[in-house]
Parts: sequence; C-alpha cells; structure tokens
Amino acid sequence: MYHFDYLQKFVEQVFIKIGCPPPDAMLASEVLISADLRGIDSHGIARLTGYIRLYDNGRLNSTPEIKIVHETPSTATVDGDRGLGLVVAPKAMRIAMKKAENVGSGWVSVRNSNHFGIAGYHAMMALEKDMIGWTMTNAAPLVTPTFSLEKLLGTNPIAVAVPAGVEPPFVADFASTAVAYGKFEILQRKGLPAPIGWAQDAEGQPTDDSNAVKNGGGLLPLGSDREHGSHKGYGLGAIVDIFSGVLSGANYGPWVPPFATAAFMAAQAGVGLGTGHFLGAMRVDGFRPADEFKDNMDKWIGAFRNAKAVEGKQVIIPGDPERETEAIRRKEGIPVLGSVVESLHELAVRFSIPFERK
Amino acid sequence: MYHFDYLQKFVEQVFIKIGCPPPDAMLASEVLISADLRGIDSHGIARLTGYIRLYDNGRLNSTPEIKIVHETPSTATVDGDRGLGLVVAPKAMRIAMKKAENVGSGWVSVRNSNHFGIAGYHAMMALEKDMIGWTMTNAAPLVTPTFSLEKLLGTNPIAVAVPAGVEPPFVADFASTAVAYGKFEILQRKGLPAPIGWAQDAEGQPTDDSNAVKNGGGLLPLGSDREHGSHKGYGLGAIVDIFSGVLSGANYGPWVPPFATAAFMAAQAGVGLGTGHFLGAMRVDGFRPADEFKDNMDKWIGAFRNAKAVEGKQVIIPGDPERETEAIRRKEGIPVLGSVVESLHELAVRFSIPFERK
Repeated sequence: MYHFDYLQKFVEQVFIKIGCPPPDAMLASEVLISADLRGIDSHGIARLTGYIRLYDNGRLNSTPEIKIVHETPSTATVDGDRGLGLVVAPKAMRIAMKKAENVGSGWVSVRNSNHFGIAGYHAMMALEKDMIGWTMTNAAPLVTPTFSLEKLLGTNPIAVAVPAGVEPPFVADFASTAVAYGKFEILQRKGLPAPIGWAQDAEGQPTDDSNAVKNGGGLLPLGSDREHGSHKGYGLGAIVDIFSGVLSGANYGPWVPPFATAAFMAAQAGVGLGTGHFLGAMRVDGFRPADEFKDNMDKWIGAFRNAKAVEGKQVIIPGDPERETEAIRRKEGIPVLGSVVESLHELAVRFSIPFERK
Repeated sequence: MYHFDYLQKFVEQVFIKIGCPPPDAMLASEVLISADLRGIDSHGIARLTGYIRLYDNGRLNSTPEIKIVHETPSTATVDGDRGLGLVVAPKAMRIAMKKAENVGSGWVSVRNSNHFGIAGYHAMMALEKDMIGWTMTNAAPLVTPTFSLEKLLGTNPIAVAVPAGVEPPFVADFASTAVAYGKFEILQRKGLPAPIGWAQDAEGQPTDDSNAVKNGGGLLPLGSDREHGSHKGYGLGAIVDIFSGVLSGANYGPWVPPFATAAFMAAQAGVGLGTGHFLGAMRVDGFRPADEFKDNMDKWIGAFRNAKAVEGKQVIIPGDPERETEAIRRKEGIPVLGSVVESLHELAVRFSIPFERK
C-alpha cells in the first residue's frame, strides 16, 4: 500500500524529468492518481510507463503550447500540441468553464491530445462552480459496432457530473461498451473465460474467450447484441467519436492512434491530429436558481437511493462507489500490483528518483 | 395504407377542433406523422387518441403561452404552459438554434410539457442550419434501475443529429433501455414471451413474461444486467431525467406523470410542472469550418458503412433505416393497424371530420 501523496509526488518527479514544467507535472500527477484514489486502477499509476513510452516514441510533447484555434462565445476548438492529455484536458475544461461563466455554457472540442486519465476528473472540475460538467474522449479502436467484423470505435467514455445540495454530487463515468477492456486483462491473468456478451470472435460470433479482442475479435458495444440494443451502445460510442474527433480535427473511428500500452493495435495513417476529447460546462443557474436546483437534486438522489431494492442490494447513485473508495484509500493507502511496482522501480532507476518497493 | 398527407391533414383538423391555433395544429401534425413516416409507429398516429385523452382530462392546454422563464446568452428554461409537446419542443428547439446562431451553441430545458413525439424530429431541425442537434425527454416511470424493485425512470430517449456532406446526416435516436416498451405490446398481442434481458419481474428476477412490466416488474436499462453494464444504461437514463426534469423545474424520476395511454401507471403528487425536455444546438462552425467538418463526416460514414461485416449484414449508420423507411412510405403510403383506424374513426365522428376507413 502506498500513500496517495507518495505516488503523486513520484509521478510529478517523473513528468518533470521528461521536461514537463513543474505546474503541469503537478496537475498531471493529480489527474493520474485520482484514478487510483477512485478505484479505477486501470487508468492510474499502472499507465505511467505507457505515457513515458509515448514520450520515448516521440509522440509526446512535454512543453506543449496549448491553444484555442477556433472559437465563439460558447464554443472552442483547442489544439493540445501533443501534450499530455492529463494536462490538455483540464486546461480545456477551464476554458469551457470560463465560457460558461460568461454566456451560460461552454463547449470545447480538443485535438492533438492523447490519453487523458479518467473522464470523471475533468467533469467534476465543474462542480466547484455549481456547473454541470460533461467529458468525452475517443480512443483507439477496440470495439466492433453491431454487425461489424472490424474494430472501428474505442471504449469512448462519457462522464457527467451534477452538483447536489447536502447530498454528494451525481457523477456518472462510463465506457460506451458492455465492459471496460481492463476486465479482460484481469481474466487473462487468471486464465478465466469471459461472460458471453462482452466480446465477439473474429467471425463476429458470441464468445467466452477472454483473449478474443487480441485474436481478431472485438469488444461489444453496451447492449451486447442487436436484440438487447447494441446498436444503441454503438450509437453512443459514435456520438463520442464524432464530438471528440470529427468536430475538433483529431483522428476518429479506426484512425485513432493506440495508447502506448495497446501493443496489439497498429496505428494507421491519420485523418487528423492525435486523440480527441470533448468537454463542456453548463451553469446550473443558467436554467434555474442554483439552490432550487440543488434541493431538487437532493430529492432526486433520495428517491433513488431509498427505493425498494433486490434482497441484499441498494440502488446505487452514480459516483457513490468511487467516492467511498476514495475515502478509504485516502486514509488507508492505494494498493499497487507487484508488476506495476516493478515498472515504477525501473522508472525510478532510469530517472534517479527515490522509490521504495513494497 | 394512407397517404402521409391525408393523415397529416386529419391530425391537423383534430387539433384545430380541440382549440389549437392553425399554425400549431399544422406543426403538431407534421411532428406526429414524422414518426409514422420514419417507421416509429408507436410514436405516431397511434398516439393521437392519447393526446385527445390528455385534453379531455384537462391536462392539455391547446392555446399555451410558451415562454422563456430564465435565460443566459447560451441557455434558457422554457415553460410549455401545458401545451402539446409536439408544439412546445420544436418551439424550444428554435430558441436553442437562435442562441447557437448568436453565441455558438444554445441549450434549452423545458418544463410543463408532455409527450413530444419522436426525439429525432427536433434534433434534425438543427441540420438545416449546419448545426448539431440534441434532444432528450423524460417520461413516466417504466424502468427499474440496476437492483431497484421500483420503477423510477422513463424510457428517456436521446437523439443526436449531425450534418454530413454528400452523405445523408447521422441521426441517432434511441431509448436508454434495452428495448422500447412498444416491443412488449407487440408480443402481448401475439401472446409471445420476451427475450430474457428486456424486463425483470416483481422480485427483480430475469423473466420472459411479456406482461412483466404491467405485473409489478420493470423495463431494464440498456445493458440488461449488472454484468453487462445495466448501470450504464441507468446512468444514461438518469442524465436524461436530470437535464429534462431537475434542470427545468418539471417532474422527474418516479414523479413524471403518465402519458394518457399508460393506463396502468398512476400519477403521483408532483415535484414540478408536467414533463421535461432538453434540447440543444451547436453550430458546427463554432468548432471548425463547416465544409471541413462535413467532408470528415463523409469519411467517417464511409469507413463505417463499408467496414467488413458479418455474413449477410452491413454496418448500419444511425438514421439510415428510418430514412429508407421514410422514402418508401412517402411514396407507397403509411400502414395503419385496424385498431388505430377505428380509434381515428371515433375521433372523426366526434369532431365531424371526414375520415375514410380502409
């Protein structure tokens, strides 16, 4: 177990060593470790070596000039200049929030970025200003749309954060697939099969092979099959891709470049610049007084949380499990897999940064 | 088979007879019949008697004063004054589009409305101005969120319309459930069971009973069960409900009043006014030049439509099936079920409007 602050400081040092300005390195480490704090281990410290591999491959600019290339009072396109998505996305979100302050809402499409950590972090930035936050990102193709044998979409997550009053905020943060790819990696390590409905094989048939996505198959959109609405999950992933990629001038669909850890995907010649994101902020009081809204959100949350549930279960408010995990991990520490500890040790040796293996 | 124009004129006459100003009656009939043209029969002429029942029950104001009650340059809340959703929603969408013209995007939350027909119609209004259109609406509770025994959400659809260049537009329009409720009604008429994953029974267990939703069970969110991501479908439905209901001051969650045809749901004392919608428009050229965007949308659509597919199938671009149905039905006519024809005949007799039964 590591104290989150220890990991955050370590990540910060690593990013400084590859040339990031200290404020950027601090921001990036906070975004990255927020994934570990919230229990989304696949998007946190485990990815640090991936970002460094991007840097080693010349795909990461540690001193980007992030700029607005096109705008109106409520919209903008931001070029991330191949900077860390962990830095580009929160800066783009600040632009969206500034526009929301001025004209009620702000919507920013981002090109020339890369992996931005957990979508929820950026959406939650809006909460401090009584705004609703939206985040989306496209990602390298792992998903076969309904009837497709080709992988054409990433797991393309959506996060929406909504402030409440006495209740904690509503924070939905989910991939547009039946499951995240990380669930397969866990099964692969254990040599276990996957539930039917998570992936298809190379012929487009249902499979329980947890290696199917590597072996010519694909992740299935939310809904799993046509009869259960996979065309809706595909539509959702497509919307994320269009808003993040086509609107900004980033790559989209099958052309989104792989993150460094996805070794089995080859980058194709691009149709745009890097990976794309879409971030938005709406002032709650652009619609009704904030107190009134937050009172009603409390009532909404209460009705759902206290609804009659299946024996032994409770209706979960989006964001509750992650917030509970964060409360525990801030106190008790963050568990890090042995293989990840080794990868951090290698970075520590390479960059001459103290790091304790435990 | 009826010519769409014949049905549209009939609907227009009916709405005039209940007191709608002729321009409103014309607009409402166009919105209603667009569902039949696009093959979404459950939301078209079959619902006309439902709207009239709303009127008979004093829940519909045929001469509403639709007005903005709160606004910023890019956001607004509109009160529909208990008008037909078929009129309130397109008028709110015009407000969103006007704001988008002025400041890049426009977002309108609507309260005090009722059923607005197909979400896609309103989203597609944005296309004529090279804007991306968004529509959502909440609806009476039919859906049991993950682990819930209570019905807390409606089928809460989302529609997104995106302009393309030489290709037809991308139009996604889908409920946040595994299937639309109409699919159960078809099975009920035929006495057939439903696939597992569409509904749960009164104990929250999987069921193939096509009457389950009537008998204390509920429709399942997109994803069907926890293992296949039903919490994501629930999250999506919740977002629609919050944007449409909580943001506007309409009813939300279990308090959304039933549409007149859903006789087995009882209205509870409200927490707001009527049903809520959320409509948005973003100017494409608020992000990048429209021609550039549309060229890339053509490329996006081409990559998906031409991807290798399962034997005998094709990857479908959202909006394609509905557009194809519309092309056929505009020429060959709209099929109307015998029971619906009878209900129209009754309205014709009541309001002394000529109507041919066929």
